[in-house]
Amino acid sequence: MRAEIAEQPEALRRTFDALLPRVGDLQALGRSTRQVLFVARGSSDNAAVYGQYLCSARAGRLASLAAPSLATVYRADLDLRGVLAVAVSQSGATEEIVTTLDWARGHGARTVAVTNMAGSPLTEIADVTLLTQAGQELAVPATKTYTTQLAAMAVLAHALGDAAVRGGAGGSEGPAAGAGGHGAEAGGVGAGELLGVPEAVGAMLGVADAAQELAGRLVDVDALVVSGRGFAYSTALEVALKLKETCYLTAVGLSYADLVHGPIAILDRRTPALLVAASDGPMLPEMTALARRITGSGADVHGIGGDAEFAAACRSALPGTSLPEHLAPFALVVPGQLLAEALARARGLDPDAPRGLDKVTQTDA
Amino acid sequence: MRAEIAEQPEALRRTFDALLPRVGDLQALGRSTRQVLFVARGSSDNAAVYGQYLCSARAGRLASLAAPSLATVYRADLDLRGVLAVAVSQSGATEEIVTTLDWARGHGARTVAVTNMAGSPLTEIADVTLLTQAGQELAVPATKTYTTQLAAMAVLAHALGDAAVRGGAGGSEGPAAGAGGHGAEAGGVGAGELLGVPEAVGAMLGVADAAQELAGRLVDVDALVVSGRGFAYSTALEVALKLKETCYLTAVGLSYADLVHGPIAILDRRTPALLVAASDGPMLPEMTALARRITGSGADVHGIGGDAEFAAACRSALPGTSLPEHLAPFALVVPGQLLAEALARARGLDPDAPRGLDKVTQTDA
Repeated sequence: MRAEIAEQPEALRRTFDALLPRVGDLQALGRSTRQVLFVARGSSDNAAVYGQYLCSARAGRLASLAAPSLATVYRADLDLRGVLAVAVSQSGATEEIVTTLDWARGHGARTVAVTNMAGSPLTEIADVTLLTQAGQELAVPATKTYTTQLAAMAVLAHALGDAAVRGGAGGSEGPAAGAGGHGAEAGGVGAGELLGVPEAVGAMLGVADAAQELAGRLVDVDALVVSGRGFAYSTALEVALKLKETCYLTAVGLSYADLVHGPIAILDRRTPALLVAASDGPMLPEMTALARRITGSGADVHGIGGDAEFAAACRSALPGTSLPEHLAPFALVVPGQLLAEALARARGLDPDAPRGLDKVTQTDA
Repeated sequence: MRAEIAEQPEALRRTFDALLPRVGDLQALGRSTRQVLFVARGSSDNAAVYGQYLCSARAGRLASLAAPSLATVYRADLDLRGVLAVAVSQSGATEEIVTTLDWARGHGARTVAVTNMAGSPLTEIADVTLLTQAGQELAVPATKTYTTQLAAMAVLAHALGDAAVRGGAGGSEGPAAGAGGHGAEAGGVGAGELLGVPEAVGAMLGVADAAQELAGRLVDVDALVVSGRGFAYSTALEVALKLKETCYLTAVGLSYADLVHGPIAILDRRTPALLVAASDGPMLPEMTALARRITGSGADVHGIGGDAEFAAACRSALPGTSLPEHLAPFALVVPGQLLAEALARARGLDPDAPRGLDKVTQTDA
């Protein structure tokens, strides 16, 4: 797992190189659809949450997550014309994901497969396959396959955010959000800004020592809450999943809003919070205020990212990234991965092969 | 909280009486829209998950959940024509929910408000208001306002499942799922079957003693996982939320599939599972097998509902309901509410007024 965390910058470079040339194919799908429906489980589902925010906030497309059992068990008879169904699966072989994408196609959706396995079953039912270039992942907890899935999400949003593509889909009555060929200025996702992502992710690897130190503080914790808001919400979910999988920690991943809407009551001296924040954007002041509120209630708060004020409001904070808020999830997950790996070892566990898990999980359907 | 739990059968009777006459209005909205987008937080969000499954599996409508911050913070510019936006809020005054419904209307959606407060801000921006008849709820944790929200979801699905309504929306190329005026035979939600719900919920109140006994077994537990699949997934999320809010327990609500896809590793002697299942339907055999698998791994499993085989696979099980799977969530949540209430008291806490919570939570935006 540790080695694969370090491979992420190179895996991201390869993935952007492979996927950016597919933008034309994605734009063709974008012109014949109005909205995006993601189909995924586990870490891939967390990547899809990032895709949902990116496609909605930066590419002007309604985007949501499917509940696979509606397809696999209840065989819901839905009209999916105008829907771009995007299945995300490292192996491309998880049966319920394959079945759900096939169901979507059968009900009128156009289809995209995001997978790390060329020739996998998922690719056979996709109009366009976005093949991530993570290379073989040996550790059971996904790291480089997750961040390369984020790259596929960004390339998808880059393609769909193009104004001409949006207009061709039937048009919104509102002002167009995407703009021109790369669109970063007007709120899209620019191809140019994506090329800076691998280096920013590489810079996060230096956080390893600080993550090790934080692991030492958390070694006796049984439960914790991981929270983020906006784009960083997807990162909070993924970090919580990594801590559950590798450290057997009861880690609850919650959006900022869901946390303050009730479950904040569970935070106390024995149940700390881990807050994830970008270094800019509208969510940062809220996250800093939340850190102060939790500290004031007597519970411990640790942070990932943010700015100096955010870090000061936390008992300890792992450094974040200068990537803009909508790209920060690529980098912010790395301290979380390093923390999960170090904490597993500190607790005498093997982070590479957690109990109860296989690399390709099949959900009985 | 205890008194309000007991008021649910009567609150449901009043709510069905008030909402079933609104079916014609909902059908008119259904004819001009293709899909449903729910907008909610907290318990209301869990009611919306039930609505998502019901509208998709029984009424043939694509249904998904909105991420409110995409509207309130990122002001996403989406084309929402053909979308029926359904906001669910007990108070009708939670600012981010009101703002999000207003945003949806401004982007072309038709709108429904599900609220317990006549004249609340949410009702002013809704094409149709479904006013639940829970009466005043004094305890902070939602109980009767939650189950009456489920009633609104069922009435909505009943209206949208009508074949004529589906056909008028532009039609699916597949076989129609709804049928005729009440549609229960062909997979819809029948008005007749809804009238049996209040009595079935009333029958669950007898579970109080068993819930008290289970609370005694869980009094020293710090963390637990609540899981369900399909329709009962929404119940698992709501029971987990009640346990977090009232007992400060780190309760993780997970779908069956998400649990087996990774986090099952957190279950051990100190972290038990609470599984929720209907007494029929395709998910029951899976849930029974899951109970055996977790027991086999050495962790404790407690159950709510299911059949005799399911109960036998659990260390203890609270009785469930004979309501069919798609209506079972009305009844299955009651043992969970009773458990949360009893467990809070067993832990020396006040279930009516948990720390850190107000009745109307505002998310800063």
